[in-house]
Amino acid sequence: MNYQMIGFVIGRILLSEAALMALPMLVALLYGESVLPFLLPILVLVLLGGALGLPRPKRTALYARDGFAVVALAWILVSAFGAVPFVLSGDIPSMVDAFFETVSGFTTTGSSILREVESLTRSGLFWRSFTHWVGGMGVLVFVMAVLPMSDGHGMHLLRAEVPGPTVGKLASRMGDSAKILYGIYLAITLLEIVLLLAGGMPLFDACVHAFDTAGTGGFSCRNLSVGAYQSAYFDVVIGVFMLLFGVNFNLYYFLLTRHFREVFRSEELRAYVVIVAAAVGAITLDILHIYGSALTSLRHAFFQVSSIITTTGYATVDFNLWPEFSRGILVVLMFVGACAGSTGGGIKVARVVILIKASYADMRRMLHPNAVSTVRFEDKTVSDRQLRGVHLYLTVYLLVFTASFLLLSLEQFDMVTTFTALASCINNIGPGLELVGPMGNFADFSPFSKLLLSFDMLVGRLEIFPMLLLMAPSIWKRRLSGGRRSPI
Amino acid sequence: MNYQMIGFVIGRILLSEAALMALPMLVALLYGESVLPFLLPILVLVLLGGALGLPRPKRTALYARDGFAVVALAWILVSAFGAVPFVLSGDIPSMVDAFFETVSGFTTTGSSILREVESLTRSGLFWRSFTHWVGGMGVLVFVMAVLPMSDGHGMHLLRAEVPGPTVGKLASRMGDSAKILYGIYLAITLLEIVLLLAGGMPLFDACVHAFDTAGTGGFSCRNLSVGAYQSAYFDVVIGVFMLLFGVNFNLYYFLLTRHFREVFRSEELRAYVVIVAAAVGAITLDILHIYGSALTSLRHAFFQVSSIITTTGYATVDFNLWPEFSRGILVVLMFVGACAGSTGGGIKVARVVILIKASYADMRRMLHPNAVSTVRFEDKTVSDRQLRGVHLYLTVYLLVFTASFLLLSLEQFDMVTTFTALASCINNIGPGLELVGPMGNFADFSPFSKLLLSFDMLVGRLEIFPMLLLMAPSIWKRRLSGGRRSPI
Repeated sequence: MNYQMIGFVIGRILLSEAALMALPMLVALLYGESVLPFLLPILVLVLLGGALGLPRPKRTALYARDGFAVVALAWILVSAFGAVPFVLSGDIPSMVDAFFETVSGFTTTGSSILREVESLTRSGLFWRSFTHWVGGMGVLVFVMAVLPMSDGHGMHLLRAEVPGPTVGKLASRMGDSAKILYGIYLAITLLEIVLLLAGGMPLFDACVHAFDTAGTGGFSCRNLSVGAYQSAYFDVVIGVFMLLFGVNFNLYYFLLTRHFREVFRSEELRAYVVIVAAAVGAITLDILHIYGSALTSLRHAFFQVSSIITTTGYATVDFNLWPEFSRGILVVLMFVGACAGSTGGGIKVARVVILIKASYADMRRMLHPNAVSTVRFEDKTVSDRQLRGVHLYLTVYLLVFTASFLLLSLEQFDMVTTFTALASCINNIGPGLELVGPMGNFADFSPFSKLLLSFDMLVGRLEIFPMLLLMAPSIWKRRLSGGRRSPI
Repeated sequence: MNYQMIGFVIGRILLSEAALMALPMLVALLYGESVLPFLLPILVLVLLGGALGLPRPKRTALYARDGFAVVALAWILVSAFGAVPFVLSGDIPSMVDAFFETVSGFTTTGSSILREVESLTRSGLFWRSFTHWVGGMGVLVFVMAVLPMSDGHGMHLLRAEVPGPTVGKLASRMGDSAKILYGIYLAITLLEIVLLLAGGMPLFDACVHAFDTAGTGGFSCRNLSVGAYQSAYFDVVIGVFMLLFGVNFNLYYFLLTRHFREVFRSEELRAYVVIVAAAVGAITLDILHIYGSALTSLRHAFFQVSSIITTTGYATVDFNLWPEFSRGILVVLMFVGACAGSTGGGIKVARVVILIKASYADMRRMLHPNAVSTVRFEDKTVSDRQLRGVHLYLTVYLLVFTASFLLLSLEQFDMVTTFTALASCINNIGPGLELVGPMGNFADFSPFSKLLLSFDMLVGRLEIFPMLLLMAPSIWKRRLSGGRRSPI
């Protein structure tokens, strides 16, 4: 374990958070609110971050396990510091509640312990949604985009933070990849702000909702979420942008570099579109009797499917009151999630496609034991090692889900609340059904459950392993006992 | 595809069913009920079975896919013919309902469409529970035990019918293995009948409940299930025997042959005991406030845990009214299921243990990329191929579950009913929660859902693949297109 290097990277991350917190402080100034809730944590972050991040470490090698430790620690620390402004401003007096809310922000979950949000300070609301934006593309990706770091280390960090079964480098240098990703991210976010402004949304609301959409978080600054605006225009704009942010960002890079073929041939994109279309169609038919008009049903079905599959979690209507078939579809979509390499959560469309194709191939082999059947995805053969990784992911995901489900059952809430609250948090969505439905919240959970769900949100956002491995005693050993050391 | 040989095996199976149906016909005679409901299907089975099963086929080779086809077809046909007596006697006038009930019987599920059972004919009740006994050890295993068949074919059939990730042969000859298994099975069943009689249970009830327990089915001949007797003695006897029938039968063979080491070193058995003990302890504490006395709570917790993990499905109390934590534990146990090679259903303890150990090993390798870590289970190394099989099972299980969940949601019942009805059927348990709780039944489901759940019960009992592969067009091709033919 290279403690010096880990401290260095985490120091850099804390400094970055200080810089990011300057933005909500500016908002506080503009709205005549107190700047202290932001100024104090910024000072602490600068001091601590400077102490850790300025001295250059002697050894700069980072091993795989260092990467896991850095990512997990960084996300916990960034969330803890990010919670401080809510406590200081009095927006969320309890530290556990504020921690839950900030983890929910950075992990782009969007679950809230707040019973209503419109009484919060403007700067608090801004920071709350801004955490979505920062967490969406990744805290470490941001650090890599702004701070130079040698490539060897970057890959480990990126692999531990970016969602999906495989990580592709866009540019030959890690830092350039991070810059390209953030550039695309910023551009689409700005485009959404412009379109929302064009529809007559106030600038503040437009920024908040664009941040929420970009990170596929879903906090909103209105008690009724996007439904508060009662506007088909906003529903369509936000619905479409949610879907856009649920797409693998590499595809946007391909579009920019005019590699259109790669985009149209993307299996994951096609599967994503097919799933969305099928779900929208089925739900539209199922809710037709509620809304009468086919167009209104289609609008709500489209918005809600887009919101849930991308794991944003916005609501325009109380889908908790929809018929069971529609509710069932939404619960299944919660687990499917968005595309790999997007800002969305869930198991990811890519993994689902790989699992289905591998199962099909293995079952084919049962009938034809001598037939050669390799699994191909995105025009590449899926190696046994990669497939094993996807299977491992699914298994550990289910084990964590089961353990969390039993612990959360201790609350003695009804089973649908327990199940969907957990599904919502571990898949980084936001709302679930019943008590935690779109018009409900997580306020009634005990502090223990709030911390458990915070853990599950981090497990979901970091794709399980960094959080679990952080608890393994052997990760903290200074070096491996025996065996070749391999800085990859 | 060797149609002649498939017809031959299925013919033999139909003849065996005719023989097995003689027993309930005898019961009808004893109780002065009409024998026609049994006599007519017996005649049809003898004629059809004789026509198919008497001419010796020229080629006797059975390929893997033939094995899947035989097993799946056999179970569907045996259930369809087994349903006829219920229709003819008027016990269950609807053919779909009778088919559901019989599939539920042979698959040892125990889910019922009957709102009450005490008004049924005695012979009907006997046949209903006798299907549990026959289905528990396997229809084909029975055929192999009574009819000589060459070893090469037997293995394929056994592999497709006996639950668990691996199939062990007890004796060098397949038929001998089947005979040993049935001998042990019969002996423990008789022991239970004796113990129930000793406690004062009428002979008829004792037979029915011993059949139910042995097959881990759970039909019962009383509306209130085992709870009707209000007897701690019966609760303990049946509770213990359910657990015994949930153990891998190979272990009883080891006991018989004085290989005690193998029994005590069995990882699956130890995991099974630990899970049962932990679940009983947790539920006892959770329901203490309902029953007041620790002993009564322990008794109900033990009986219910034993009933659910072995997938029997008996109830002594309405556990649907228990607190959420206890309900949550029971739902998790529904999925875990009993040991491989037992008469119980579910994912099986062996698979759960292998999945956990493999995940642990793979996560260790993330931290220590050069560490050698093989997965060992029951003192043997789990090969990558075996592990892949377990992963495949889990994946396809989840896919079938998800698809069935969506289709079943069309009923628009509450989500807990939908989810647990499906979990109960696919894991061959019997009751679920809410509408299908221990005091509820499956009567209100539509014919479509009843057929869907029948399919899921067969999927669960035959461990997925025979049922799925039966629907693959290529299984029906006369021979493989190209490639070496491999009769394994």
